[in-house]
Amino acid sequence: MAERRLKFWGWGYEDQQLTEAVSGKVARFVAGRTGAVMHAYRAPPRLDEVTLKAPRIAVPAKLGALVSTSLYDRAAHAYGKSYPDYIRAFARDFSNAPDLVAFPENEADIVALLDWAGGANVAVIPFGAGSSVVGGIEPKVGSGFKATLSLDMRKLDRVREIDTTSRAARIEAGVYGPALEAQLKASGLTLRHFPQSFEFSTLGGWIATRSGGHFATLYTHIDELVESVRTVTPAGVMESRRLPGSGAGPSPDRLIIGSEGALGIIVEAWVKLQSKPRYRASQAFWFDDFYRAADGLRAVSQAGLYPSNARLVDGEECALAGIGDGKRHMVVLAFESGDHPIDAWMARGVECLRDHGGMPAGGGAHGARDATADAWREAFIKGPFNREGLISHSIMHDTFETAITWERLHDFHASVKSATAHAIHAVTGKPGHVTCRFTHIYPDGPAPYFTLHASPTPGHELEQWRAIKAAASDALIAAGGTITHHHAVGRDHMPWYVKQRPALFGAALAAAKRALDPKGILNPGVLVPAPTS
Amino acid sequence: MAERRLKFWGWGYEDQQLTEAVSGKVARFVAGRTGAVMHAYRAPPRLDEVTLKAPRIAVPAKLGALVSTSLYDRAAHAYGKSYPDYIRAFARDFSNAPDLVAFPENEADIVALLDWAGGANVAVIPFGAGSSVVGGIEPKVGSGFKATLSLDMRKLDRVREIDTTSRAARIEAGVYGPALEAQLKASGLTLRHFPQSFEFSTLGGWIATRSGGHFATLYTHIDELVESVRTVTPAGVMESRRLPGSGAGPSPDRLIIGSEGALGIIVEAWVKLQSKPRYRASQAFWFDDFYRAADGLRAVSQAGLYPSNARLVDGEECALAGIGDGKRHMVVLAFESGDHPIDAWMARGVECLRDHGGMPAGGGAHGARDATADAWREAFIKGPFNREGLISHSIMHDTFETAITWERLHDFHASVKSATAHAIHAVTGKPGHVTCRFTHIYPDGPAPYFTLHASPTPGHELEQWRAIKAAASDALIAAGGTITHHHAVGRDHMPWYVKQRPALFGAALAAAKRALDPKGILNPGVLVPAPTS
Repeated sequence: MAERRLKFWGWGYEDQQLTEAVSGKVARFVAGRTGAVMHAYRAPPRLDEVTLKAPRIAVPAKLGALVSTSLYDRAAHAYGKSYPDYIRAFARDFSNAPDLVAFPENEADIVALLDWAGGANVAVIPFGAGSSVVGGIEPKVGSGFKATLSLDMRKLDRVREIDTTSRAARIEAGVYGPALEAQLKASGLTLRHFPQSFEFSTLGGWIATRSGGHFATLYTHIDELVESVRTVTPAGVMESRRLPGSGAGPSPDRLIIGSEGALGIIVEAWVKLQSKPRYRASQAFWFDDFYRAADGLRAVSQAGLYPSNARLVDGEECALAGIGDGKRHMVVLAFESGDHPIDAWMARGVECLRDHGGMPAGGGAHGARDATADAWREAFIKGPFNREGLISHSIMHDTFETAITWERLHDFHASVKSATAHAIHAVTGKPGHVTCRFTHIYPDGPAPYFTLHASPTPGHELEQWRAIKAAASDALIAAGGTITHHHAVGRDHMPWYVKQRPALFGAALAAAKRALDPKGILNPGVLVPAPTS
Repeated sequence: MAERRLKFWGWGYEDQQLTEAVSGKVARFVAGRTGAVMHAYRAPPRLDEVTLKAPRIAVPAKLGALVSTSLYDRAAHAYGKSYPDYIRAFARDFSNAPDLVAFPENEADIVALLDWAGGANVAVIPFGAGSSVVGGIEPKVGSGFKATLSLDMRKLDRVREIDTTSRAARIEAGVYGPALEAQLKASGLTLRHFPQSFEFSTLGGWIATRSGGHFATLYTHIDELVESVRTVTPAGVMESRRLPGSGAGPSPDRLIIGSEGALGIIVEAWVKLQSKPRYRASQAFWFDDFYRAADGLRAVSQAGLYPSNARLVDGEECALAGIGDGKRHMVVLAFESGDHPIDAWMARGVECLRDHGGMPAGGGAHGARDATADAWREAFIKGPFNREGLISHSIMHDTFETAITWERLHDFHASVKSATAHAIHAVTGKPGHVTCRFTHIYPDGPAPYFTLHASPTPGHELEQWRAIKAAASDALIAAGGTITHHHAVGRDHMPWYVKQRPALFGAALAAAKRALDPKGILNPGVLVPAPTS
């Protein structure tokens, strides 16, 4: 049986490509609900339509077996999965494809590849499964390098050790989400970190980008699930101790978590596991007012209940998922436990939401799964697959996400939404559609996630997207948010990341990078400005 | 009314000094339970017994009002509160006292002091309330500096802003624990971070040392309560954004949290507050076997219940607190909530402990406070005050603490305890007494805290302590622990911290320090080796 290959240009496997008919159906549905203008179908790129420049460098013979220069491999490592990535792929533009793609099989291979790259002035871009939506794995490294190498971690895909007593496992960084959970299954334990990209992302990618998972509270980021990390840097290997907690200086792990491939290549980590949930309850609620729903969630977040799910989806975004009347806003509240019944937890959570005007959707009994919540969940998982239908019909679809403290939420939400909608109108000449949900909530604030749909001028999508992205990001930074809660910085967010972070932290980070990556070959331009760009 | 002054040589205020009679009572009690040898009473130092070398430098006139060279101030900033600190103070040895003590009133004063110190090659030691037990605030900086200045933050003591919506407050770093809570009181909110040093430690000190508080689970370290930090470094001021969560690169706050004054002076922070507990329940349990008690706590820690207290105290340590028969081990389990009754939580927690052989102590009804738990709590708070009684009678008392994953606990606990006891015997020629409790528990492991009592040869306490400390620390590092869970690194733990942390993290941290503190004047020798020592 042939290996199931990932699309070289978009979300999912090659056999998961939408037909023209399905693309049309998806686009018509979205156009109907957002007012976006649908243009004639454009087919996704085929590999035979792609031409690449010849690689600018070759590896020495001893590394030859690790490296591919095939058209497929190079094209498949050119982009992540952002809107501008799709637009360029649909334009058959793969000019930033890496010269080389390496598939190391172990840590020694990575050390050898980094040694060679350092000597040859080749930029190395760590690659998990390519789900970045922020230009994090694009080999766009400025002019200071002789060539680029995409370092694909997929062969380091094993769970090496499971400690059922402390509930932790030592896992290689290149493993995809489903394979990770499959290897844990027999132990009865699970990582239960389910970012939307779960199927096409890796443990190392999650740690490198501070990914946000399944849990809406408490264990939101992968950060909280990391016990120790092993990292290969050009200066050598570093590994932190496996400790449940420590107060010995600033946390070594917290320097690597979120380092986006700019400080080293994460090769392995001990991560914290938990028992499979035995008790679960989920219920959806409708609210007439978005901000009252937010108040309800604030009460939940400050109650010390730690629900596994506590998400607010605004009315228009519900409608886009085929749920509700477009006017009322949905909150999904769920608890789960591998240890004890969660009735008392759910009862108090429900009370918090009712106190703020929440009306239970569906049957109402909260002991079981809720149909409204399930419908939204299915739409959430299918979303990334459907995006190619929108691109095929020239509908712009993009998302951006952030976090803000509760007391600023109203003004923040209003100003970011309005600045984005205004920018869409100003740039495209047509109205845009901007919706919002909360992906995670904290006692001190939510993580709002915005989705936009627009009608760009075919052929001008890239420049129009850039202008809209800039306006949205400017508004978000001006109003006090973070440029990303869990999508990472990559290349796309650098201008706003630099504004957001303390300048002296930037200087400290650049100094740390010089210590670990003296030649600056790792993911140049990400987190630390590239020397020559 | 005269200002209530802190003792210049030990724990608490000057009016809290033990009488000779009380010292004798304390020492007799401890000697009776530990077998330690009691020697004749030695009085604590009086200020008129202390002589200091003249300050090696003076500040310029414009800084004169901020700086003291009084005997009291210099002596009171020479030491923290560790056993070797007491021993040297009782020896009337204050040779490491700072040349100058500064009391800045605001951030501008701190900037001016750092500017001057950088130009004059004066080492600056940030000082909160002096409760360090690891040599963290001792002006022992090697030979590379012209003089030393202890920078006492006590005048930056205000809560500046309270946000009751997001439950956070902006607070100056020099405020002592009780004054912090007093200023929050009217808001109905509380930080609820109660390290044992609470009365004599500051917010800035907590953040700089990653202090461990009241909560035995979840919000154990101050780390989890920090929303943003403002820091003055010799290179300028850095302040992170107030965000409930972020995924934008490695966390800037996590570089400052635990930086122990080596990267900058924390001047202010936004910290997360919570509502005052309205529902509380606490119950103590007895276990016949220490490791079965640990198993019970492991079950609690992995149940997702998040008790506010979940501490194990071994039998001999209970006896030292005047509780129990010395053979059975105590677990205290407590829940609290400002939001909802905690019956379901307590019921399941109790079940976890009973399943592992826990027998309820006292009355048994778990709706109210428990007398056994209360007795231990009182002994816990009085402990630091009583130490001077032991020193006065030449009984060595010291503590060290760590963290380890559950699956290594048995061997770890046995080997560290035995190595420490053996070292005491080898060094002093007399048996020692080593006890253990857990201060915090995590799903993947506990934070064991060891207390030792020994009978050093009078006049040789320092060298004997050093040998015992080294043996205990060697054992702890060899068995996989951290050199500190919440006491910090300071100067005393540097040799083991350097072994524990990844060497490349040390290089990255040193590089970050050069970026923030180019002349290396901040707390030299802490976290980053001092240039000339």
